[in-house]
Amino acid sequence: MQLIPIAYARNGFSDKFGIPRQRVDGSHIETRIVFCEAYRMPEALRGIEGYSHLWLLWGFSANRRKEWSPTVRPPRLGGNRRVGVFATRSPIRPNPIGLTAVPLLRIEHTHDGDVLVVGGADLLDGTPVYDIKPYIAYTDAIADTKNGFVDEVDFPTLTVEGLKQHLLPPTTHHNPAKYEEWEELLRQDPRPQYQHNPDRKYHIVYNGEELTFHVEHNRLIVEKITLQELCFSSCKKN
Amino acid sequence: MQLIPIAYARNGFSDKFGIPRQRVDGSHIETRIVFCEAYRMPEALRGIEGYSHLWLLWGFSANRRKEWSPTVRPPRLGGNRRVGVFATRSPIRPNPIGLTAVPLLRIEHTHDGDVLVVGGADLLDGTPVYDIKPYIAYTDAIADTKNGFVDEVDFPTLTVEGLKQHLLPPTTHHNPAKYEEWEELLRQDPRPQYQHNPDRKYHIVYNGEELTFHVEHNRLIVEKITLQELCFSSCKKN
Repeated sequence: MQLIPIAYARNGFSDKFGIPRQRVDGSHIETRIVFCEAYRMPEALRGIEGYSHLWLLWGFSANRRKEWSPTVRPPRLGGNRRVGVFATRSPIRPNPIGLTAVPLLRIEHTHDGDVLVVGGADLLDGTPVYDIKPYIAYTDAIADTKNGFVDEVDFPTLTVEGLKQHLLPPTTHHNPAKYEEWEELLRQDPRPQYQHNPDRKYHIVYNGEELTFHVEHNRLIVEKITLQELCFSSCKKN
Repeated sequence: MQLIPIAYARNGFSDKFGIPRQRVDGSHIETRIVFCEAYRMPEALRGIEGYSHLWLLWGFSANRRKEWSPTVRPPRLGGNRRVGVFATRSPIRPNPIGLTAVPLLRIEHTHDGDVLVVGGADLLDGTPVYDIKPYIAYTDAIADTKNGFVDEVDFPTLTVEGLKQHLLPPTTHHNPAKYEEWEELLRQDPRPQYQHNPDRKYHIVYNGEELTFHVEHNRLIVEKITLQELCFSSCKKN
């Protein structure tokens, strides 16, 4: 079957590093789903405002170059235990389709047609979207599940320090990320799971801004935020 | 993106009519996911037994001939109200991918490799499967959702009468459907939503058997069960 993108995701994630790993209810991170022209008719969305959540089916385009392998090493398991690819949500799989449930925050009427604004998505900016389906509790929400290795792993969060004083001021060219957006991204501990070096400085890019931090125990300390100098990054927020 | 089937679904549904419309917990309907040879290595499933539920991403192959339209008329709404295609789970959509959460009942080691046996799936026999992902509660199970027009519609069930005395006896050629399977399929009211004619006889095919029934108010009365005579149907159960 040949899939054709019906829409593209637009958000502040130009880089995989830092992308949310799990849905945060009431997330401050927004992604805009902009339809391709052939699918931009308002009637195709008729009734969608009646749903609180949607499924996005999308392409792991950033990983397209990689060959799939029967086993993968999930970062959550420290990157050193092999698990079957179908027992993971790894992007490197035979048909690299991603599946994400997101809250539908609002619909904006724009020059690019009706845009779905969704919360807390784990998609890179520019990701092709192949399908949008309503989330329907009676088929999709299962109360008691056994969650494989995910049940074994803890997701500790970090306290974020020094963020407020480093936030960038708005300019005519750049609308800076809000405190709540950065805080949400940092709190989840964006470090690779197998790199816990206390002396290391980490860089995370969001919304055309580069934030530098280090981690002491469970405290994430922000060192600075700078505007990315590369044009293709700072031009991305539309 | 080009999708390649990784597996095919095998079950008793040779016909769309009667296919379950919603997941039944503890379903007696089983579907076997048989992997294509290129994906038949046991290590690709390593750890999958730790999950109670899986996502199947599959192709609406029986509808491939139809062109998508921006609006559809869901059977649930009586077939006379138009809703945007992205506000429905209609099979006739730009990229006809189906999404179903199913319980993983067991893994069978067979001559066709390791087969995943799942419960209560809404897939036709022979449906191509493009991806299998673990169901992970923290990203997939959302407690409080608004479910669009689905919230407006009642799903009344029927009481099933006269089933037991019509069940077929086993033969060397045919392993008949069990009482629990038929009961589950009939109880959900398999009639098209916009056909509620009390004089009408309905036929439902499952497991190479054809069951005839009519409905009086909320009672579904079984008239007979016969073995389908067409070879391609009775040969399907493998």
